[in-house]
Amino acid sequence: MLYLIGLGLADEKDITMRGVEALKRCGKVYLEAYTSILTVGKERFEEAYGVKIEIADREMVESGFDEVLATGCEEHVALLVVGDPFGATTHADLVLRARKLGIRVEIVHNASIMNAVGCCGLSLYRYGETISIPYFTETWRPDSFYDRLVSNRRCGLHTLCLLDIKVKEPTLDSLARGKPVYMPPRFMTVNTALEQLLEIEASRQEGACTAESLCIGVARIGCADQRIVAGSARELLAVDFGAPLHSLVIVGDAHPLELELLEGFSASASGAPSTEPAQSQ
Amino acid sequence: MLYLIGLGLADEKDITMRGVEALKRCGKVYLEAYTSILTVGKERFEEAYGVKIEIADREMVESGFDEVLATGCEEHVALLVVGDPFGATTHADLVLRARKLGIRVEIVHNASIMNAVGCCGLSLYRYGETISIPYFTETWRPDSFYDRLVSNRRCGLHTLCLLDIKVKEPTLDSLARGKPVYMPPRFMTVNTALEQLLEIEASRQEGACTAESLCIGVARIGCADQRIVAGSARELLAVDFGAPLHSLVIVGDAHPLELELLEGFSASASGAPSTEPAQSQ
Repeated sequence: MLYLIGLGLADEKDITMRGVEALKRCGKVYLEAYTSILTVGKERFEEAYGVKIEIADREMVESGFDEVLATGCEEHVALLVVGDPFGATTHADLVLRARKLGIRVEIVHNASIMNAVGCCGLSLYRYGETISIPYFTETWRPDSFYDRLVSNRRCGLHTLCLLDIKVKEPTLDSLARGKPVYMPPRFMTVNTALEQLLEIEASRQEGACTAESLCIGVARIGCADQRIVAGSARELLAVDFGAPLHSLVIVGDAHPLELELLEGFSASASGAPSTEPAQSQ
Repeated sequence: MLYLIGLGLADEKDITMRGVEALKRCGKVYLEAYTSILTVGKERFEEAYGVKIEIADREMVESGFDEVLATGCEEHVALLVVGDPFGATTHADLVLRARKLGIRVEIVHNASIMNAVGCCGLSLYRYGETISIPYFTETWRPDSFYDRLVSNRRCGLHTLCLLDIKVKEPTLDSLARGKPVYMPPRFMTVNTALEQLLEIEASRQEGACTAESLCIGVARIGCADQRIVAGSARELLAVDFGAPLHSLVIVGDAHPLELELLEGFSASASGAPSTEPAQSQ
């Protein structure tokens, strides 16, 4: 059996009882560590649940896992995934490869940013397509996600923007030399995401995200020090959201109850406090 | 402190370790039992975690909870919610009322159908607005959700349809007499949802859900006997999905990887098996 176990959002306490039971059944346990991160290292899981955990990077999950699957997973194998196992396409692909080999796969669901973002006060029902914002480079400044944002805005829908994560990325130089040297991990901030969006807005001019657009920056959702701030893009550019992970919501046509809930996270001095202690809201 | 604790989707094992810790801190524990249901009763939680639980019906959560909040929640209070606490608007409203009274609220997130539906193989990023399908009556046959389905389809997006639940609904007769008598609980099936959608389609004729549209019926997601079947609306009408809860997905423009994953759940004899045992896929 291959178990894909969702870990939720913050630390070793966000795994479910079902997840812990599955974990303890497994001879081999991997932690997927490139599509998202927790606030704690694998050691905390090893201590809390008495298991030994190997880190699985992109290469391992996308190709190295074929060796694991080739064993038939008769000794139960677990892949721990931050959030829910189906938050990233790469895990759907793994399920497909396992299925082709006749290996049974059991899923242990958990919260992910896709549903936990509900805590910022906007109804989950009223989100349109989710977009991913990649880091711009000198020569690569894609804007296809802007089309999806325009489409959501036209339908009055909110847009969740997932922000780029660069973990274990080799430098171009080192690749050219054939001996990968890895850059330090980078996690896109709400501020960088907004700068890039405003740059695209300036050239496209379709009004999907202007300096005055109502947005919500969220950081470390589900953690004791989570931060949620609602305000115009211009206001949020000045906010320091702290440590990763960050996400951004572009607000569509908000209902009165939604606006009332957002007031509690207002960036402007006249509003209620924009952040509150210890996972509270 | 008021704790809103998500329970996930199936039974007492889907609560997180953080949720269990919070639960044990509380002097009063309520289980919200009208926006969704688990496959087990409150007794299983009481036995597993050594707490006493009161059932909170709609009336209790929407107005009766004001008495609980009036105590200031100095003795910690927990409201257990199936799925994630922000799956239903009613809980966002409760957070707002608590906040106005200066009561701290802590959220314990969990999986909900909004993200767990990722298990059927379609990318969560490519869903549009979620729709709720209410039971038709003789005199009330609303179709406003059809507009949102049309809009999603035009953008090529998938649509998650949440199906009506009637729990503790008084009969009209008994209301007239001023002494409520409750009807047995009802949970809309995939079949009823499709019948209603096809009836609207027949009058509106915008092609958002025809007998040939590719749909996915899902039942008891996250449970050992979950069922996922993909096929045309016509094919799914003939499928018995078994016990509640059911949901329905109307497929938008699917990518090749999505279609490959759906094959594993095909309703047609030529496809792969449409269901698999014990929470596996």
